[in-house]
Amino acid sequence: MTLLESLKGFIQENSLFSRNDKILLGVSGGIDSVVMLDMLLKLKIDIGVAHCNFELRKSDSVKDESFVKKLALDHSLEFHCKSFNTKKYATAHNMSVQEAARVLRYTWFEEVRSGGYDHIAVAHHSNDRIETYLLNMIRGTGIAGYHSLQVKNGFVVRPLLTFSKDQIIEYARSNKLKYRKDLSNDDLKYRRNKVRNEVLPLLAQINPSIEKSILENIDILQETDKIYRGHIDMLQRQIVVKHKNSWRISIAKLVKLDPLKTYLFEFLKEFQFNSSVVDEVANSLSRQSGKKFMSATHSLVKDRDFLIISERTASHQKKPTIITQKLKSIKTPIRMSMRNIKINHFELTESQQCASLDTDKLKYPLRIRKWKRGDFFYPLGMKQKKKLSDFFIDNKISVIEKENIFVVESGSNIAWIIGHRIDDRYKVTKKTKYVYHMELNNGREG
Amino acid sequence: MTLLESLKGFIQENSLFSRNDKILLGVSGGIDSVVMLDMLLKLKIDIGVAHCNFELRKSDSVKDESFVKKLALDHSLEFHCKSFNTKKYATAHNMSVQEAARVLRYTWFEEVRSGGYDHIAVAHHSNDRIETYLLNMIRGTGIAGYHSLQVKNGFVVRPLLTFSKDQIIEYARSNKLKYRKDLSNDDLKYRRNKVRNEVLPLLAQINPSIEKSILENIDILQETDKIYRGHIDMLQRQIVVKHKNSWRISIAKLVKLDPLKTYLFEFLKEFQFNSSVVDEVANSLSRQSGKKFMSATHSLVKDRDFLIISERTASHQKKPTIITQKLKSIKTPIRMSMRNIKINHFELTESQQCASLDTDKLKYPLRIRKWKRGDFFYPLGMKQKKKLSDFFIDNKISVIEKENIFVVESGSNIAWIIGHRIDDRYKVTKKTKYVYHMELNNGREG
Repeated sequence: MTLLESLKGFIQENSLFSRNDKILLGVSGGIDSVVMLDMLLKLKIDIGVAHCNFELRKSDSVKDESFVKKLALDHSLEFHCKSFNTKKYATAHNMSVQEAARVLRYTWFEEVRSGGYDHIAVAHHSNDRIETYLLNMIRGTGIAGYHSLQVKNGFVVRPLLTFSKDQIIEYARSNKLKYRKDLSNDDLKYRRNKVRNEVLPLLAQINPSIEKSILENIDILQETDKIYRGHIDMLQRQIVVKHKNSWRISIAKLVKLDPLKTYLFEFLKEFQFNSSVVDEVANSLSRQSGKKFMSATHSLVKDRDFLIISERTASHQKKPTIITQKLKSIKTPIRMSMRNIKINHFELTESQQCASLDTDKLKYPLRIRKWKRGDFFYPLGMKQKKKLSDFFIDNKISVIEKENIFVVESGSNIAWIIGHRIDDRYKVTKKTKYVYHMELNNGREG
Repeated sequence: MTLLESLKGFIQENSLFSRNDKILLGVSGGIDSVVMLDMLLKLKIDIGVAHCNFELRKSDSVKDESFVKKLALDHSLEFHCKSFNTKKYATAHNMSVQEAARVLRYTWFEEVRSGGYDHIAVAHHSNDRIETYLLNMIRGTGIAGYHSLQVKNGFVVRPLLTFSKDQIIEYARSNKLKYRKDLSNDDLKYRRNKVRNEVLPLLAQINPSIEKSILENIDILQETDKIYRGHIDMLQRQIVVKHKNSWRISIAKLVKLDPLKTYLFEFLKEFQFNSSVVDEVANSLSRQSGKKFMSATHSLVKDRDFLIISERTASHQKKPTIITQKLKSIKTPIRMSMRNIKINHFELTESQQCASLDTDKLKYPLRIRKWKRGDFFYPLGMKQKKKLSDFFIDNKISVIEKENIFVVESGSNIAWIIGHRIDDRYKVTKKTKYVYHMELNNGREG
């Protein structure tokens, strides 16, 4: 079987995408993404190219960009490109440069995707998977870290995950593909190389089929985690109950759970409590009431029968900002301008910085407020409702970024997750007469 | 804090045992078990010593035994000792020598424990835990393999798990303890040494606190697995339904589960189906009925609405052997003799080869049959009933050994798991007038 045939089989078996889907390819210009592009072209899949310039390697970054641009144009493919000040973003958000690049990349990929693609394809292969697994194991990250890279995660698909690096190199060679050598030499790369060149060969001395063992193990652990997550979610819905502006956890129900601390940790994670505070909360359960615990975003009080969790945000921040139909702009909590446009004067702009909604469907005044746990909406292009928390996970929105996300509310519905996605129910259709157009005045960082 | 104080704290925090418990110590004579013995003596815990002679290292095995015997007698401790033909057992049961030694050790420890101790203490320390974790990771064993050694598992406790090898060496030095050097040099030891001397130092170059990370990770993964197992058990009880002599799985209920293959694997594991057969079963669900699958012990048929699982054992083997009150001995399925003894002529023997039951509480005829899934009993010394499958797990009974376990049934109750444990409801008490004594005529292997 040729590599192309086995790719075709892999795509079908894992229902990665269907023949009519349009796929946005993340292309760095390195061997992996160039091979992915070539293979999907040969399979006659409808594709477009997205390239991120993280501005981390000066002239090399510029050359990579030109190389990918030429590659896309040579094949008459749509080409999307964006530059990021990755270092600045990393510093501002207290992340590593790698993490920042990852957040920026996937956030932007999703932005482009929602403008006209069905999926995002990235070029990770099975050696990436093994190395990521070992790196996570070495860092120590509970079961979630054992996931490594998934075949399919939200809109992101990884068609090359069935191939090894050797197979990819051989494909590039026999198809005479040109690609850019990856010159980055950062800390992650150092650790990754160490795993590749030293750890794996050493482990292979103990178990010659270590790579196969690890890949099998990743599959098993992914399924285990899926079942585990499902179980936790189900219990969380039963036990963490929204009550006006707070959440309540029945202590009587909680103490029946075993292992209690792990359950409690999973329930309180979303409220930003860390494991040492969770331990203290667990130890307080059998003691006198009234003890208070704090996370960055929430407070927790041990009452007689309940743990009561409330947002720490000061009360003035909790109040929504009211937007009447005549208001032209606001400065807090976010700089934004608003216009009402007759449909024949309106032109659709594809940017996450704007929202174009059907005026007649909105209920004025609108309200702007922070998103909160339990919020849901109908993402543009989808017929099912989706919890915002799940939307953020699928779109790789980091914890820090999540904290600063605002929504536009119309009645009790969310019409726009500001800077991310509008709700399908308010989109402009053929029947629309007036478009209510909102636009952010200061672009998002990066 | 001295090591003794921190041991005391560790025992309390983890409720390993209480002050009045009597503990059976597994003592090989090596530094770890000698330190454990010394520490528990100093904490004035009521202890006894058990030593296994696996007859793997000829004169060294003999010297180890003499050393431990002298150590026990010097401290006026009860001393239990047993020799095993480990290699023969391993060959007969198609196990590695290490695995055979483990099964033999824990089976015998449990035998001695149930004769008068509350717990079994073994001397694993935190480096054992880290190494076992890495060895399992290298072998590739799903989440169960990430357990590594548990602080408490059934009757087995590991009081030294809080200490590192260095702390143990330092304790032995400063207390001038004598111990036997471990001279074994088998395959497991080779791999363990490789992990200790090469893998761990290499991983520490990437993460200097690798040992701490791994220990934290083991704790998290143990809890995750506990929740996962609990969830699977709950669903299994709902979905795998006993129906006369077979088990039925509703296909309609099954296909609602996601990830289906993993759930099905967990449900069918007990019936000895391996993962590739489980995959085939899963793929057959949407197809025509009638397909049949085989495991070593069971057959599975895909019916229209159900998967139907039955034992493969030939029908004559399935019939129980009837034991009337007058019968003196039987030869199949197991060689055994029976006597009825007046209580004043009776003397209790502490051996797993015998069962002494209260005659008046038994319902004749008794029946001898293989144990089966769903069986439960009240283990001697316990007030709660326990599934046999759980009893076997707690007592580290291997899959192969499990296949050959018979039970004595009185009415619909299990009175004796032959060769393992009697039921608390039939034990000899002060009120007993006649004792029904059963004794195996050929000892169990080893």
